[in-house]
Amino acid sequence: MTFTTDQLAQLEKLAIEVPSWAYGNSGTRFRVFGTPGTPRDPWEKIADAAKVHELTGLAPAVALHIPWDKVDDYDALKQHAADLGVKIGTINSNTFQDDEYKFGSLANSDAGVRRRAIDHHLDCIEVMKATGSTDLKIWLADGTNYPGQDDLRARQDHMAEALAEIYAQLGDDQRLVLEYKFFEPAFYHTDVPDWGTSLVQCLALGDKARVCLDTGHHAPGTNIEFIVMQLLRLGRLGSFDFNSRFYADDDLIVGSADPFQLFRIMYECVRGGALDADSGVVFMLDQCHNLELKVPGQIRSVLNVQEMLARALLVDREALGQAQQDHDVLAAHGVFMDAFSTDVRADLAAWRESKGLSADPMAAYAASGYQEKITAERVGGTQAGWGA
Amino acid sequence: MTFTTDQLAQLEKLAIEVPSWAYGNSGTRFRVFGTPGTPRDPWEKIADAAKVHELTGLAPAVALHIPWDKVDDYDALKQHAADLGVKIGTINSNTFQDDEYKFGSLANSDAGVRRRAIDHHLDCIEVMKATGSTDLKIWLADGTNYPGQDDLRARQDHMAEALAEIYAQLGDDQRLVLEYKFFEPAFYHTDVPDWGTSLVQCLALGDKARVCLDTGHHAPGTNIEFIVMQLLRLGRLGSFDFNSRFYADDDLIVGSADPFQLFRIMYECVRGGALDADSGVVFMLDQCHNLELKVPGQIRSVLNVQEMLARALLVDREALGQAQQDHDVLAAHGVFMDAFSTDVRADLAAWRESKGLSADPMAAYAASGYQEKITAERVGGTQAGWGA
Amino acid sequence: MTFTTDQLAQLEKLAIEVPSWAYGNSGTRFRVFGTPGTPRDPWEKIADAAKVHELTGLAPAVALHIPWDKVDDYDALKQHAADLGVKIGTINSNTFQDDEYKFGSLANSDAGVRRRAIDHHLDCIEVMKATGSTDLKIWLADGTNYPGQDDLRARQDHMAEALAEIYAQLGDDQRLVLEYKFFEPAFYHTDVPDWGTSLVQCLALGDKARVCLDTGHHAPGTNIEFIVMQLLRLGRLGSFDFNSRFYADDDLIVGSADPFQLFRIMYECVRGGALDADSGVVFMLDQCHNLELKVPGQIRSVLNVQEMLARALLVDREALGQAQQDHDVLAAHGVFMDAFSTDVRADLAAWRESKGLSADPMAAYAASGYQEKITAERVGGTQAGWGA
Amino acid sequence: MTFTTDQLAQLEKLAIEVPSWAYGNSGTRFRVFGTPGTPRDPWEKIADAAKVHELTGLAPAVALHIPWDKVDDYDALKQHAADLGVKIGTINSNTFQDDEYKFGSLANSDAGVRRRAIDHHLDCIEVMKATGSTDLKIWLADGTNYPGQDDLRARQDHMAEALAEIYAQLGDDQRLVLEYKFFEPAFYHTDVPDWGTSLVQCLALGDKARVCLDTGHHAPGTNIEFIVMQLLRLGRLGSFDFNSRFYADDDLIVGSADPFQLFRIMYECVRGGALDADSGVVFMLDQCHNLELKVPGQIRSVLNVQEMLARALLVDREALGQAQQDHDVLAAHGVFMDAFSTDVRADLAAWRESKGLSADPMAAYAASGYQEKITAERVGGTQAGWGA
Repeated sequence: MTFTTDQLAQLEKLAIEVPSWAYGNSGTRFRVFGTPGTPRDPWEKIADAAKVHELTGLAPAVALHIPWDKVDDYDALKQHAADLGVKIGTINSNTFQDDEYKFGSLANSDAGVRRRAIDHHLDCIEVMKATGSTDLKIWLADGTNYPGQDDLRARQDHMAEALAEIYAQLGDDQRLVLEYKFFEPAFYHTDVPDWGTSLVQCLALGDKARVCLDTGHHAPGTNIEFIVMQLLRLGRLGSFDFNSRFYADDDLIVGSADPFQLFRIMYECVRGGALDADSGVVFMLDQCHNLELKVPGQIRSVLNVQEMLARALLVDREALGQAQQDHDVLAAHGVFMDAFSTDVRADLAAWRESKGLSADPMAAYAASGYQEKITAERVGGTQAGWGA
Repeated sequence: MTFTTDQLAQLEKLAIEVPSWAYGNSGTRFRVFGTPGTPRDPWEKIADAAKVHELTGLAPAVALHIPWDKVDDYDALKQHAADLGVKIGTINSNTFQDDEYKFGSLANSDAGVRRRAIDHHLDCIEVMKATGSTDLKIWLADGTNYPGQDDLRARQDHMAEALAEIYAQLGDDQRLVLEYKFFEPAFYHTDVPDWGTSLVQCLALGDKARVCLDTGHHAPGTNIEFIVMQLLRLGRLGSFDFNSRFYADDDLIVGSADPFQLFRIMYECVRGGALDADSGVVFMLDQCHNLELKVPGQIRSVLNVQEMLARALLVDREALGQAQQDHDVLAAHGVFMDAFSTDVRADLAAWRESKGLSADPMAAYAASGYQEKITAERVGGTQAGWGA
Repeated sequence: MTFTTDQLAQLEKLAIEVPSWAYGNSGTRFRVFGTPGTPRDPWEKIADAAKVHELTGLAPAVALHIPWDKVDDYDALKQHAADLGVKIGTINSNTFQDDEYKFGSLANSDAGVRRRAIDHHLDCIEVMKATGSTDLKIWLADGTNYPGQDDLRARQDHMAEALAEIYAQLGDDQRLVLEYKFFEPAFYHTDVPDWGTSLVQCLALGDKARVCLDTGHHAPGTNIEFIVMQLLRLGRLGSFDFNSRFYADDDLIVGSADPFQLFRIMYECVRGGALDADSGVVFMLDQCHNLELKVPGQIRSVLNVQEMLARALLVDREALGQAQQDHDVLAAHGVFMDAFSTDVRADLAAWRESKGLSADPMAAYAASGYQEKITAERVGGTQAGWGA
Repeated sequence: MTFTTDQLAQLEKLAIEVPSWAYGNSGTRFRVFGTPGTPRDPWEKIADAAKVHELTGLAPAVALHIPWDKVDDYDALKQHAADLGVKIGTINSNTFQDDEYKFGSLANSDAGVRRRAIDHHLDCIEVMKATGSTDLKIWLADGTNYPGQDDLRARQDHMAEALAEIYAQLGDDQRLVLEYKFFEPAFYHTDVPDWGTSLVQCLALGDKARVCLDTGHHAPGTNIEFIVMQLLRLGRLGSFDFNSRFYADDDLIVGSADPFQLFRIMYECVRGGALDADSGVVFMLDQCHNLELKVPGQIRSVLNVQEMLARALLVDREALGQAQQDHDVLAAHGVFMDAFSTDVRADLAAWRESKGLSADPMAAYAASGYQEKITAERVGGTQAGWGA
């Protein structure tokens, strides 16, 4: 076994929220392709999410998207999740699909539209109460496409005011997590384009407001692990939205485009105590599976995060610290790369088996017959997607 | 009048194809917002396109997208266009919306899918014959999302073979124009990512194959006017797809994001003879109007191209050449910027009036009642969009 | 005259600091080419800077770089500047050229190196007192080239502590301005990579700490005017370092790569009150003239800033506000572009003549014989550059 | 042992040229830091290069840069290399450091400057004859900083003509390799910005002209392995300049920024037969060691290339092909990632020991006393750098 007892204890702490929408259909503006077996409702999405947890032991919570996951009886949904061994996680609001939001929601110059968007968030807080969720995640599609289209500063002030009204309704154990994104669906400017803007909005709100870092939402060349470090240092990292990208917000499987970057991010998590319960950091996926099967796509994703965390834990921090202090660039980089170069898959398989899980969750899924079962059963109805 | 007779003669040559799909609804993967008055069929799209030409004198042709613009009677469609004062331009194929194309079309490893995609292009050639169109434009959504997903080289060979089969069916006065795009909807690799790939495929095909340059399809930092220059130098620039972008393939109104870049592109067109009839260069828009009204969005676009061409024509090429030869950097740049800094709008208004057009086409459109008319009349049916 | 009295009053407020180092030689890692007439010392640099002000009326202050501009008698230097009609502006520290700074300065893990770097800044504060300068600008070359090379978080804390020690020595009327830069000369990470990091460091310091925004120091696709807006909104924009770039920190003449971006930045300055005396915003150039002549390169630069400010002042803000409120995208964008499309050069020439200046400062410089004079006189000695 | 006999045979084929200039000092425009033990002349550089080969068995050739590596007696230099167990590889021309080249070399509008630059290349061909080198590598710093500064198309034609004159002087067993670079030291345009331009220039020259792909010379988001594939497919990949980068042409140790990208590139080399002797592909490093020690920096680099080649060889191409044919995205990606995730270091250590080399070349270098020796001996004289 490559890992020490302490490292294993750290590995044990990893819990990853999976997004309900990853199990629905997704695509690009050019086309959304359907997949046999796609869930038709939140109940089926949660069943799929529970399968991921059952096979990996890594995904005990599932995040909801409102209104996509609206149900009449949240108590029953919560119980449904519990029966399947998972719980409801973050509640994600959605203010980008109604016609009224064409020109923005919380940052819209129209007070009536802002009212509607604020009310939607207050509804989400009700869902949180009903499901036991503690985090309200806000990602805004707000922005403009053309220079001059709207007043950048007035929008920022509108948003601050609206967020304050939402924040005021949070319970003592609830938090608001504000996500930033530098591009898309607005093309000229987005109202929360970077971690700086998210942070200053959070600072104005209070201690229960935190920043959400989506790994796909940065300009080319951005050093993401630096931002992870900075937000942990400031005590304001609320959650991750993990995915990967080659160019834009591609929402690919986390770790599939640049595994070394994921390793560096996980190293900063270890370095900054993000795995500690009191850090308040939620690890979450936010992905699309446009072409590949969705349940095994999610399995692969949580395994990737675990694998890079495992490698990050192998960094010999004492040796690293010494080389850094000596300004021995090659030695320090070498210690870092030694951990990254280590193949931890056999150890993680052993870890899984020690917990009664299959050594190979991907193979276990293929052998489980689950995909065939949902393909056969989920006939008729409307496959879930971003519109529902 | 700022312009010389020669410059006016050059301005006269500008003719811009507008895309039928710009008049339909478009949006992002997050949401496609509808707009009152949106056409329900190709006949209405052509009517809108004709309005743009009527008011600007700049847009005598409209490009079609097959199957979006499929009709039973192309003769009638051609006549409809002629009656409205425009003609049918480039025929654009579409191999990205059927389920069979999930993993590619002409580059797919499945020979059956390639067959289907080839046949679609042969159908498009039939449409060309029926409509009098001379250009078949091929943009492929082909590519992959994950490293290892498919064999990059085999795909390139498949595509070459398929293109050759299509090319062989072109008539003597027909051309194949191959568009490149470095990203989206495929995220890891696209099969025609850059002008180099488009060019080598065209060189393998023959003289009737040309490169299509879409101004939004390049990596950040790419010097687009350099590519314009190079393709003109090689005699292989087939057409432009004009639009503008801040980050990705934003498909915004041409000239709205970086007017100076458009000026530089138009200067290379002037420099390289792209306006001459025998250059074979087709100027075309390829845009989306997600938020703004579509007809005036197109009017604005063709005016922008004309305005930057007009400024480009003002470059004092003799003075420029002298300063360049002297390696007088500031003087040469100054001559270039003098042209760009000149406000040509009054002159272009005068030009329009001299041709019996309104001095201000945007105002003329607003005053025309056309928007109110289509809003009132186009009720019921399904608004056109990328899906139809 | 295109401008109203109010607009003219705004134009009058524009004062741009020029950097002493722009008059020295500069280049790339491949080669620094020399130029005849290049100053050999701070006295000659100030003479060149004064020439720019004499001809444009726009550049009343010159920023110094220490130790490049170290002199024995700062009183005399200050008097020299005053005699030539300019004053000493921002003092820029330099902690990137001594061998001791190979692995960083204020963020170095070595306390002795940090001590040396702090002391250098305290020396700079002495220079400020001697020259009457009120701003200490800190740009740090600190960072690393390889993942693992150093501890990102410890460096951030070291820097915070060091900045606090420097800040504590500022006089009541002195400020600390912290510049950010996302890349170069460190390639993996820089210790102040973005406005967010600069801001959180400033917030920790106190009210006299502000952010410096260098227009060339952002990742591709970054909306810079948004950051200008945000920092003005937060009351933390300390200064601009104007220049332009196509890809990296190219340090080209401001306004030469993307004039429309400069226009948008100047519009946010107008919108956010940056021209008001109490805004505390300093407009400064930070440029290189690798190939072109330096004095006219600077003249051209300050004229470009003025020209884009003038266009920005022409934005019909009432009409713009109305169109924005109506969500009339094309109208709002149109109002914005109308201002940008206006040729203000004749009006600015008239403004200059009204102040007793030449209508055309570039021509006036060429006619002045100054270039010939410095070329003839500045023979022997060592031309100033980044090393001295 | 993880590797099959066939895979080992492929591994045996790897030979990497190291650049003489990597052993000299390098840095940024801000500062070039010196390092104790840096060579003072080509003889010492070759000694350092030979050390890399001695310890790794991977670096049998050293590339020269003319005039940096000019000597009076090339026969003696060649013999010196042979005595140390290496040979002279590619000859790199340099047309960016003389004052005459301020505005370009082969693309300069001044025929006299072009003459001088052509003659320099003819001199390089003489060096090739004298040293037995077969490749002339041309990288041009040519380009402009400002729009309008020069005529893009005329420069392209000048360059084509000059290259033809150089090409005509090549011997039957000599090649011309043309490198492209999209940015720096020219900032607005470079005359060979992309592989497309390099290719069309090579096609115009003839069969002995090939493209050089420097891994650091692409725009953000470029899929480099696609270009590798395409150039191999076209039979025009002449050589690699390996290095890595986070943002620009950072020239960091190959494999240090994105090891997965290097893996993908090496996979395409395997896929496309680049290791076969008749492929004509030369694997070369082109790096800077600004902060780290240079000899071990080079050792680390060649080991990184070998390690990623070894992983690439582990791709189960049969299983991959099957999964690709099945369009099983997750399975195909999984096969690919299995190879990348494998830790091959122990196997490579065993391979080294089987050849009488140290299992750990980095440790062997540290233990060898070589660094101490060159530090002690190389005192006085001028350390080599980019200027000499």
